[in-house]
Amino acid sequence: MKIIEGGVCAAKGFKAGAMRCGIRKSQTKKDLAMILSDCECHAAAVYTTNRVKAAPILLTKEHLKNGKARAVIVNSGNANACAPFGIENARREAAAAARALDVEIEDVIVASTGVIGQTLNVEAIEEHAGDMEMKYDNSLAAAEAIMTTDTKVKTIAAEFEAGGKICHIGGICKGSGMIHPNMGTMLAFITTDCAISSELMQKALLADIKTTFNRVTVDGDTSTNDMCVVLANGMAGNAEITEEGADLTAFCEALHVITEDLARKIAGDGEGASRLMTCTVAGAADEETAEMLAKSICSSSLVKAAMFGSDANWGRVVCAMGYSGAPFNTEEVTVEFASKEGSITVCEAGRGLDFDEDLAKKILSQDEVEINVTLKEGDGKVTCWGCDLTYDYVKINGDYRS
Amino acid sequence: MKIIEGGVCAAKGFKAGAMRCGIRKSQTKKDLAMILSDCECHAAAVYTTNRVKAAPILLTKEHLKNGKARAVIVNSGNANACAPFGIENARREAAAAARALDVEIEDVIVASTGVIGQTLNVEAIEEHAGDMEMKYDNSLAAAEAIMTTDTKVKTIAAEFEAGGKICHIGGICKGSGMIHPNMGTMLAFITTDCAISSELMQKALLADIKTTFNRVTVDGDTSTNDMCVVLANGMAGNAEITEEGADLTAFCEALHVITEDLARKIAGDGEGASRLMTCTVAGAADEETAEMLAKSICSSSLVKAAMFGSDANWGRVVCAMGYSGAPFNTEEVTVEFASKEGSITVCEAGRGLDFDEDLAKKILSQDEVEINVTLKEGDGKVTCWGCDLTYDYVKINGDYRS
Repeated sequence: MKIIEGGVCAAKGFKAGAMRCGIRKSQTKKDLAMILSDCECHAAAVYTTNRVKAAPILLTKEHLKNGKARAVIVNSGNANACAPFGIENARREAAAAARALDVEIEDVIVASTGVIGQTLNVEAIEEHAGDMEMKYDNSLAAAEAIMTTDTKVKTIAAEFEAGGKICHIGGICKGSGMIHPNMGTMLAFITTDCAISSELMQKALLADIKTTFNRVTVDGDTSTNDMCVVLANGMAGNAEITEEGADLTAFCEALHVITEDLARKIAGDGEGASRLMTCTVAGAADEETAEMLAKSICSSSLVKAAMFGSDANWGRVVCAMGYSGAPFNTEEVTVEFASKEGSITVCEAGRGLDFDEDLAKKILSQDEVEINVTLKEGDGKVTCWGCDLTYDYVKINGDYRS
Repeated sequence: MKIIEGGVCAAKGFKAGAMRCGIRKSQTKKDLAMILSDCECHAAAVYTTNRVKAAPILLTKEHLKNGKARAVIVNSGNANACAPFGIENARREAAAAARALDVEIEDVIVASTGVIGQTLNVEAIEEHAGDMEMKYDNSLAAAEAIMTTDTKVKTIAAEFEAGGKICHIGGICKGSGMIHPNMGTMLAFITTDCAISSELMQKALLADIKTTFNRVTVDGDTSTNDMCVVLANGMAGNAEITEEGADLTAFCEALHVITEDLARKIAGDGEGASRLMTCTVAGAADEETAEMLAKSICSSSLVKAAMFGSDANWGRVVCAMGYSGAPFNTEEVTVEFASKEGSITVCEAGRGLDFDEDLAKKILSQDEVEINVTLKEGDGKVTCWGCDLTYDYVKINGDYRS
């Protein structure tokens, strides 16, 4: 397997397009993207577990009942959640894409991101979607169009082998705020030319997100619009993967490379973030315990604020473990901070150590920092990703709508 | 019942004292306080549910096994949690108070607040505690000494009648950060001269905090040191309350006035807070549902940041309800923002309304703002308190230890 360029256009037969159609107030930012496969795809998807689900989520679920799709339309600037005419407008958005791309409306996946509660300007989409130029090397434009408060484009692709054929898989996503996925995630679109059944792909996706997108947190807020979709058009020419075996393993490994990379990028580009925080809890009684502990640490406002200040305030790490709800022996906790500048152990057997504050500061001042917790209770090991809490998070979210 | 002055010295026979003994680096801030009753008290207490419990919590639990106490010693500047020699130093702190106040060590309650993980300078306490002047009108000095990043002293007292006698009850507390109490709370000390059995008082306290301290959140972090203690010395001369009835009701009502007032003060003075946020969810299926919804709203970083920006971004309110885990009909949600400047309904039947943005901004720019959510599913109604998320929260917590 190797990392390649191309994002959602890395796989054979996938085109993408993007434009500014007028949903956003901004005169420059793109706000509409589409992805199209040359032929029908098997599709898998996971969605937000928020009880309040945006209209496009409801419509997409309906369209994917048969496990098939050919196109995706995504708008930014408006979430079409709790909005007047929500489902009606989502349907009109799908219909606009179907007309523009000459596909069946049931084969269109619709996704939206942006402000909650305002009526979607679907007329702008209907008016302009037909003008969108769809190209085989246009993933970057689509990745830009789905950004909201994201500061970086998030894209990745890889090449792998299945059934003796070279297959490609790639994805784009948007993250930034309202990020605390739970069995679904922000907006992520992944395409592959590998032939694989919808059922197996759905199973693979469900298993995969548990250790990737669902281990990211920016602000503890699970969005109403989270969605992760994988489209497989089979154009690599491999025999369709319909059962477990080496080919499925290869597919799952490739999928994992894509999702973990996108998950890390989402955490590192969390709203206002100045650094990516990777927290690994090892030696826990089991994986569930390790995950509860690691997520609690990554979610703590106090830990996040300490990371912003490059302050080795490990007491907050232990405190966050303590209220996580997970059982652990408080007398057997080791905490280490690490980055490319080295590592430093600050707490052992649940008690503070004397440590070099200057070195700790240097370690924690890097773009990517690690919080490594070790227990002595078993083999449970989990890594979660988050970011620091900064002035800019408050600034961005103090007045998001204007 | 009427509100009176005096804090923890409002009740007969209670003295307080405070001083700077040298635990904090600051040359001016007080860091040690004591409270003493002229005679033995019945005592009730609740503690943090954090699995990591500070040493003073463990020691106080041991001392209160018999339901009796006479004195409290509290230091700020060091939490004595995850610290070397934790329990030993807590015991030395209690012994210092016992010697200084001439009481039994088992009758001393010990509480600490401050940085986690550093050795407590117990020698400073041992050296200076004996010099502390204990006075009958000195509650304010004690309230000041227990402050950490608090900006305001938190104190309240009330007068009520039980058994034909005038009784007094009063309290002081500290809050500010690491505030998300769960069956315990920050540090709160309440004294009364009402005669009441330890058992009934414990029951009353447990019931009371569910609707007061446990409905406050500042940052979602449950501290390792939370403690709320009530001491009753019986000096009002009423017949001891030992069963349910009018006297117990009067006591509970008075206790509730004290705890609710202190809870609101903690939320309003949350770290960096610029305003108190009161969230009421009504019409929920039951109280538990209403509480889950209200707590989720008050805990949302995005809701809190919107309140900082006086931004009527109600979509975040509905989103936070959606991921709370509580069931509710998303098509029957009404959201109103209110303050002394009036009120404005921004969402009805789960859909956004057109509303006057200028009026909304004016309403949300006040020191105290309300988020009122109404459902149509039952009688469940709960109020929770929180605060906004500000630049100052990040500033304070980016480098708390230095």
